[in-house]
Amino acid sequence: MQLTCEIISVGNELLIGKVVNTNASWLADKLTKLGVAVKKIIVVGDDLDEIFLCVKEALSRRPSFIITTGGLGPTYDDKTLEGLAIALGRKLTLNLKALEMVKRKYESMGESLTEARIKMAKMPEGAEPLYNPVGTAPAAKISYESTVIYALPGVPREMEAIFNETVSKEVSLSSGFKIAEHSFCVIGVMESALAPIISKVKEQHPEVYIKSHPKGTEEKPLIHIYLNTFHKDEIVAKRIVSEAAEKLISLVKESYGEVVHPIEEGKA
Amino acid sequence: MQLTCEIISVGNELLIGKVVNTNASWLADKLTKLGVAVKKIIVVGDDLDEIFLCVKEALSRRPSFIITTGGLGPTYDDKTLEGLAIALGRKLTLNLKALEMVKRKYESMGESLTEARIKMAKMPEGAEPLYNPVGTAPAAKISYESTVIYALPGVPREMEAIFNETVSKEVSLSSGFKIAEHSFCVIGVMESALAPIISKVKEQHPEVYIKSHPKGTEEKPLIHIYLNTFHKDEIVAKRIVSEAAEKLISLVKESYGEVVHPIEEGKA
Repeated sequence: MQLTCEIISVGNELLIGKVVNTNASWLADKLTKLGVAVKKIIVVGDDLDEIFLCVKEALSRRPSFIITTGGLGPTYDDKTLEGLAIALGRKLTLNLKALEMVKRKYESMGESLTEARIKMAKMPEGAEPLYNPVGTAPAAKISYESTVIYALPGVPREMEAIFNETVSKEVSLSSGFKIAEHSFCVIGVMESALAPIISKVKEQHPEVYIKSHPKGTEEKPLIHIYLNTFHKDEIVAKRIVSEAAEKLISLVKESYGEVVHPIEEGKA
Repeated sequence: MQLTCEIISVGNELLIGKVVNTNASWLADKLTKLGVAVKKIIVVGDDLDEIFLCVKEALSRRPSFIITTGGLGPTYDDKTLEGLAIALGRKLTLNLKALEMVKRKYESMGESLTEARIKMAKMPEGAEPLYNPVGTAPAAKISYESTVIYALPGVPREMEAIFNETVSKEVSLSSGFKIAEHSFCVIGVMESALAPIISKVKEQHPEVYIKSHPKGTEEKPLIHIYLNTFHKDEIVAKRIVSEAAEKLISLVKESYGEVVHPIEEGKA
């Protein structure tokens, strides 16, 4: 069974369109490459009820992982860990290991602890704080039934650093899956004309994901075709994708001639 | 009561991190400026069950609007309208007005209708097709109890054109709200030091949204502060935000001196 993940991005700035959710797409890309299927991305505001309901719903779908981003900082509207505690039915308590991390960060800057700073060390009972090599708020790892929850900061370089240094290793240890991909482009054939051919190949290769991306106009069509599949054995994954791609290309050529081209670097 | 909206973005490309969900942030920005509160953004894959469950859950929260993007095209994995039909308990039927739109588009290109093209005109019963000035797939508007659903295409320039030419007018007719905003930056004070001041002002002005965005490092802090509020009367909205901003600025200056600065253009 392929491991699954739901991403929950917390932050009003995402709901008012002030910030584009690049954290979610960055994580989705990394998780896909680690063999994990991202099933859902959910954005909620800095609202305790919204956060805990959203986490509760996600837990009920029993994904292997839930990764939250945002809401770990020192301000009144950083509520992710409190929301997680409610969703899990656990107390929010001062985590001494997290407090030590926060304290050391501020000491190194010649600063002392304040109530707002101590807040960043309050985590659901049973949480394991994860070291933040870039910022001050520690991340948190919490196991709940068959799901592992990672609560990461919302600042991209902090989130990325903690993912790269800690989360990614743990995820790839659990997941034995490899991804194989294949892309090409079709010039001069409309997407609606390719649709029945793609459907046919999809039926014959149900394990391969095939997606057409129109990049030109209906009048001057340029369609990118992307295929991928996952398999524990990288060689098998590559073979499966190649077979589907070859079938698709030969059917397109049969109907439309020499319209299949490689995708130029940097234009994918 | 402020109008509310949930955005549902459909597409596997978003879940594998191949595409950043700029559609959702573009819509969130536009809706916020039209006085609508975006409560949730949800990304699901091109999977019929996922789509209809997600729409059903969103409907149960009774938002004023649900806007979906993606999944209206001619290929086998374009399933949004079918998912909507299941969620609403309605049949998916050939919409003659939509068929006429699709037919005219292809006729203008010297093309005839095919099964894949006719598929784009199959909509839930009672749907009103919305003209797509850029592409071929019509959008759809569906009323269900107190919620209006807009199903828009996933190609950004098509989605934006239909929103700008049709949806935005309908939304602003329903919503009488105006937004007032205020931004400034604080240089040389850590976010954790500003947190208690922001909390205090937030308590005194609960109707104002106040958000701090750390842009520097903990060692060289540069914090952007953003405030907004909504009100039917634009002048009242501006007054409410100004009062909260003035209070916040004066408290910051009291504690830290001349650390408040305007945000330079293009650096927001």
